[in-house]
Amino acid sequence: MTVHKKSQELAEAVGRGMYAQDRTSQFLRIALDEIRPGYARMTLRVTEDMVNGHGMCHGGLIFTLADSAFAYSCNSHNHNAVASGCAIEFLAPAHIGDVLTAEQQDALQIFGPR
Amino acid sequence: MTVHKKSQELAEAVGRGMYAQDRTSQFLRIALDEIRPGYARMTLRVTEDMVNGHGMCHGGLIFTLADSAFAYSCNSHNHNAVASGCAIEFLAPAHIGDVLTAEQQDALQIFGPR
Repeated sequence: MTVHKKSQELAEAVGRGMYAQDRTSQFLRIALDEIRPGYARMTLRVTEDMVNGHGMCHGGLIFTLADSAFAYSCNSHNHNAVASGCAIEFLAPAHIGDVLTAEQQDALQIFGPR
Repeated sequence: MTVHKKSQELAEAVGRGMYAQDRTSQFLRIALDEIRPGYARMTLRVTEDMVNGHGMCHGGLIFTLADSAFAYSCNSHNHNAVASGCAIEFLAPAHIGDVLTAEQQDALQIFGPR
């Protein structure tokens, strides 16, 4: 994929700026592995603090990882954006020690009036 | 609401048992305030560790609170249950210091073959 150098620099700057404020990702040790314009990849290692009452990774934390990748990708053009709603299907359980990856590629970005 | 005493005792025992294993709720200090058969109410105080890159409460943690209330309610009859999928609409932002409440009342429970 060819990315304009300035767009890439902007995406990386946005990623650094957001992450510095993003206490949740720091707290949960969610890593921002890659950011490009309209794209982000983040990872989470499931720790003992992340299991639910059934001993599996809490679905809320799987959602948090996905929601974070969505947020970094959506904001990578340096236009503030937040999710108004999300849906998730839990396809398989995750366990302590698993490293989960969330990859977000924006299909379409529509910006409102500025 | 009239609840059979034994059903109520069972729901409370399930709540205690799940919470003892539920490291995520302990870690995030999500409190199980009330559990009844088919019902749970949980609260989360938004701390400085819970904000996202925009300085608002991370949507993933709002989802985690709601998902937890869902889990306790669904399991209150002592039949193991997990969510296969969820959808959430974020109606308003939450901020540091806010106390969020999630209340879950099961509309219908269908149990599979045992």
